[in-house]
Amino acid sequence: MKIAIAGAGAMGCRFGYMLMDAGADVTLIDGWQAHIDAIRQQGLYVETETTQKHYPIPAMLADEAEGHFDVIILFTKAMQMESMLKKIQPVLGSAKVVMTLSNGLGNIDTLANYVPRDVIYAGVTLWSCELEGPGHIRATGSGNIELQPIASSDTAMEEQVVALFNWAGLNTEISENVLLSIWKKAAFNSVMNTYCALLDCNVGEFGKLTMALDLATSVIKEFVQVAVSQGIPLTEEMVLNTVKKVFDPRESGHHYPSMHQDLQKGRLTEIDYLNGAIARIGEQENIPVPVNRLLTQLIHAKEQR
Amino acid sequence: MKIAIAGAGAMGCRFGYMLMDAGADVTLIDGWQAHIDAIRQQGLYVETETTQKHYPIPAMLADEAEGHFDVIILFTKAMQMESMLKKIQPVLGSAKVVMTLSNGLGNIDTLANYVPRDVIYAGVTLWSCELEGPGHIRATGSGNIELQPIASSDTAMEEQVVALFNWAGLNTEISENVLLSIWKKAAFNSVMNTYCALLDCNVGEFGKLTMALDLATSVIKEFVQVAVSQGIPLTEEMVLNTVKKVFDPRESGHHYPSMHQDLQKGRLTEIDYLNGAIARIGEQENIPVPVNRLLTQLIHAKEQR
Repeated sequence: MKIAIAGAGAMGCRFGYMLMDAGADVTLIDGWQAHIDAIRQQGLYVETETTQKHYPIPAMLADEAEGHFDVIILFTKAMQMESMLKKIQPVLGSAKVVMTLSNGLGNIDTLANYVPRDVIYAGVTLWSCELEGPGHIRATGSGNIELQPIASSDTAMEEQVVALFNWAGLNTEISENVLLSIWKKAAFNSVMNTYCALLDCNVGEFGKLTMALDLATSVIKEFVQVAVSQGIPLTEEMVLNTVKKVFDPRESGHHYPSMHQDLQKGRLTEIDYLNGAIARIGEQENIPVPVNRLLTQLIHAKEQR
Repeated sequence: MKIAIAGAGAMGCRFGYMLMDAGADVTLIDGWQAHIDAIRQQGLYVETETTQKHYPIPAMLADEAEGHFDVIILFTKAMQMESMLKKIQPVLGSAKVVMTLSNGLGNIDTLANYVPRDVIYAGVTLWSCELEGPGHIRATGSGNIELQPIASSDTAMEEQVVALFNWAGLNTEISENVLLSIWKKAAFNSVMNTYCALLDCNVGEFGKLTMALDLATSVIKEFVQVAVSQGIPLTEEMVLNTVKKVFDPRESGHHYPSMHQDLQKGRLTEIDYLNGAIARIGEQENIPVPVNRLLTQLIHAKEQR
């Protein structure tokens, strides 16, 4: 199976080498010249807990994307997806599957502007990875994937994709309601990412604040109302349970969410696809969303600072 | 006229030496032992733009307050007023005027729990001052005072107080609607103090943010609704005009509001008497106040961090 990974950051590279190891014909596509150059010259250098290895994966610049791919996995951040899709338009037409596992709301709609809905697979994943430098990732820990073709009836293709992913060790299950999982994860991130970034703290430090649950609930209440207006059966309890779990310092308490890291490094954040999406949809649907609106503006203010 | 200044921080000391210079019999009262000791030993040391001078002003610890005073000026921060009033209760009974010029909402109600309403004078002031260390202030710039006896009909006393203050150069005018001025200043501070503290920026930097006016308006809209519910004829325009004025870098653009300094130095802030007061009164009056409520919690979260 010919697979292109469009957006070969940390996660894209991790999926790339794991799928290659499982026998797939993988190509990495990215916009970062030094990264593509490094992969072409010495292969993708992967460190795991126990091994270091160079993977000779073909790599191409997004602007020069060409060829035929059965499966294209978009692995950009939400705010870069549109620009990536524009660049790789020449290779989109032949794909039987175009997949997004990116965080945030709105990714499916963005994809649907470029490819037919019946090739779109959407999902959520708990895999993680770190990009150490051009052509170099550190791939530790394990994860899983919840995946769903959002409109396809091609079950043979679906089975092939899932079989390949599981052969690669990616722990993939077909979901019956991936939209609910996407919204649930976005709600979780709209609490943890946003508050940790705003208050400059890690997950455990946030959890210890006396007002942490109250702050979380303010976000989640609006989130759930907007979700229900879109036909997503999200409940406050679902999100609060996952939030409370990570407050436990034995869990991921020392973790700084990615938005915190984005602000520290002067990068733009995913806020418009988290709290900002709720603010936008809420205003369209006449649902009051003052909390998510204010948090979105405060994070944008931090980006400008 | 015998005057006690209860809360002899920067502002209390400035008023103290200016009133003493005008011939008043002033006593400074404070809870900070080293400060009282320094003033007793060498007088209050005052630096202005052009002079340095020691003022031999009597000073006493709040816990040991005694004597008879015609006028008591409370110059604590809002959150310390209650504890100061408890300590100086022995001297409160004889006062014909008990005055507050402190920032924030609720100070008059706090005073009214300890003294009859017809001795209370309330006001706002643009004077400022810095406390450099025990017994040492730097008093630069100029200011004015808007003052109003909130229930007194003793016009002779009112005239005496205003005459003394103006003799001292304090530029004092009797206001016809001091509550409006207090709410207007509190609304202004609930924008500038709170956002500059939260976003770690000065007034000019805040003003340059593309969403600054939007952020300000969210706070002010709720503020005005709550004000009107309390019979205060505040309008959005009144507050927005003062906010827009300081965005001009030729104005006080380089100034870090006191709440920013409080957070930097690990001190508690006045948030409960600014946005927090709006959140509290709004909830009592069934007025939605999500923005001021969230900002109050975020500042308290910063205090805990």
